[in-house]
Amino acid sequence: MRLSSRYRYFDTKVPEILSWARGGVINMAGGIPDPAAIPPSIGDIAMDVIRQHSDKAFQYGDTQGLLELRREITRFKGFGDPDGVVVTVGSQEGLDIIGKTFIGPQDTVAVEDPTYFVALPILKTYSHSVVSIPIREGGLDMDKLEETARSGLRLLYLMPSIQNPTGRVMPLDERKAVLELAEKYDFHIVEDDPYSSLSMTPLPPSMAQLDPYRVLHLSTFSKIIAPGLRVGFIITTKEASNALINVKSATTISTPPLSQLIAAEFLKRGLIRESIDRARQLYWSKLTVISTAVREAGLEFQEPVGGFFIWLNTGIDADALLREALKLGVAFMPGRYFSPSGSFSTWIRISASQVTIEEGRLGVKRLANAIQSLKH
Amino acid sequence: MRLSSRYRYFDTKVPEILSWARGGVINMAGGIPDPAAIPPSIGDIAMDVIRQHSDKAFQYGDTQGLLELRREITRFKGFGDPDGVVVTVGSQEGLDIIGKTFIGPQDTVAVEDPTYFVALPILKTYSHSVVSIPIREGGLDMDKLEETARSGLRLLYLMPSIQNPTGRVMPLDERKAVLELAEKYDFHIVEDDPYSSLSMTPLPPSMAQLDPYRVLHLSTFSKIIAPGLRVGFIITTKEASNALINVKSATTISTPPLSQLIAAEFLKRGLIRESIDRARQLYWSKLTVISTAVREAGLEFQEPVGGFFIWLNTGIDADALLREALKLGVAFMPGRYFSPSGSFSTWIRISASQVTIEEGRLGVKRLANAIQSLKH
Repeated sequence: MRLSSRYRYFDTKVPEILSWARGGVINMAGGIPDPAAIPPSIGDIAMDVIRQHSDKAFQYGDTQGLLELRREITRFKGFGDPDGVVVTVGSQEGLDIIGKTFIGPQDTVAVEDPTYFVALPILKTYSHSVVSIPIREGGLDMDKLEETARSGLRLLYLMPSIQNPTGRVMPLDERKAVLELAEKYDFHIVEDDPYSSLSMTPLPPSMAQLDPYRVLHLSTFSKIIAPGLRVGFIITTKEASNALINVKSATTISTPPLSQLIAAEFLKRGLIRESIDRARQLYWSKLTVISTAVREAGLEFQEPVGGFFIWLNTGIDADALLREALKLGVAFMPGRYFSPSGSFSTWIRISASQVTIEEGRLGVKRLANAIQSLKH
Repeated sequence: MRLSSRYRYFDTKVPEILSWARGGVINMAGGIPDPAAIPPSIGDIAMDVIRQHSDKAFQYGDTQGLLELRREITRFKGFGDPDGVVVTVGSQEGLDIIGKTFIGPQDTVAVEDPTYFVALPILKTYSHSVVSIPIREGGLDMDKLEETARSGLRLLYLMPSIQNPTGRVMPLDERKAVLELAEKYDFHIVEDDPYSSLSMTPLPPSMAQLDPYRVLHLSTFSKIIAPGLRVGFIITTKEASNALINVKSATTISTPPLSQLIAAEFLKRGLIRESIDRARQLYWSKLTVISTAVREAGLEFQEPVGGFFIWLNTGIDADALLREALKLGVAFMPGRYFSPSGSFSTWIRISASQVTIEEGRLGVKRLANAIQSLKH
């Protein structure tokens, strides 16, 4: 069976690595939410919704998303207009329809380096030219960004608030500088924001709040309600949302109304704050234990402010390290998967999302042993 | 806001036409299932599923789809292997991931002319070369198909069983002839099959049954359980399904498990036959009344064997006719939307899915009046 030329972007072996939790292997590779973060009330809410709205729950929904959910989303986020919200099957579908709508094959797209690896195959599907903008100690390489913008940039994909994999938070002045370039060179920004609710410290305003016209804000309820709902959303202008709706009407047609009704009811009942607090504490307690263990093992890294991940340079080839670590019973993600330029070969991403505190501590110990044994 | 070059394929005005049911306009344009076809038991099943499987219902599901649903799908269809089934967010997502997986920009795709209009923007997104194979009185133009195949064809998109818009059923010998060409020239076939369950007469074996290797069978529960579940599926080989899963893991990640569990339970309880019988009778009763009215109005058409639609040539420019018909209070789909070559400008598609029997009869009367007034 002949596959398309673009299929190679999708054939990453990443799903395999993410699933490594067999035969005593501690899975610090995956980013799947902890089931304990899913609010126990979700089942009751689902049943109430079915009792009250079974007419709506099983028919096609509006392609844009149910108005009641779009209203709750803007109320929850504190910005945007329901007319400019598009509800999607997770934020990953959001990125896909943004790609179809805004990026032509000849348009240049830029991404941070490192960046979220699952964004790359989608962006490469729609654009022949995906450019890496390095993240340096001082932040995003603004010279490279401006140089890229000058020769014609259509879209910049960013995770300004708790980036995956680095955990970095882009400071306010940097956000403003990026937006100034967007204005000057007429490009748009996708602000992918799955983790901001899980921050332990206040974050700068989202880029969509700073410039609603330039920024497509992409987010999801997967980390703060339940991933199985597959409810994500884009907050943008009414003009952009109209175009996105036309595209979505030819792909998933509508996000399942039952999922949308459950999310809307959850928000309406004011349960989201409590749910966010629980999820944030849960992941933070694991992340701090893991951070401590990593520090005690003598490894240096940037302290995260929340989310799922720790990003660090081991100084050892990460693929070799992974082979060794698997023997000792722990899995992580090698850094090169996050790098569109093939950099970060000695970096790794450690995830706190799928392990218990005990497993986390033990996992880091095994990892430290793997590093030691390769240094000899 | 600058849109991508491919956005024009999606900006069809079709969603607007499909929604025309305002101010007394009878909507014979849309193809949305009748709410009366949705089984009343679905709400109870959904509640049982939530009670019994709330752990699974709200967590990410397996990207391929829940094994229990994939098993039920092959049992229901009577062919395929659960390993080769991929569950999708409606069959439209199925087509999208097939496009990403199998069609590169330089690969040629062929479609019937006329064909299902929502397939076109997706196919054009992934291939620069979408070729029309006319449907003639004698069937698909096999000379044109062979000529296209000879110069390199990757994928042929077909609806062999109750085609949208024509209602045509491809006879067995034609299916076999197409498969022979696929073998000879090494192309694959997407068999889009949303309507076969709604046939009033026995249909030939599906093309996937005749050649499981050459054919990707694409279908959905939207017309026979409930569209709001957004559960579709692809039946193919294990090899092809592996590639499709890698692609889906970067787009919708998984079809909502709650929807999948509801569909699986519905099938497990053996309710699907009854549900199909009810839906088939419901649409057939409307379709026969409308057919009769169309015949009485002196219009010629090919009698459908089931499904939602009647396809006919009015001899009048369909856009002009639509303007006139809207004044008289009825909407339909102009034929040119279904034609990748821009043919069928005097043809129209009339839908029985969204109207009552009374509305259907009245709608055809209004249509006949519109035709009369334009003939003068």
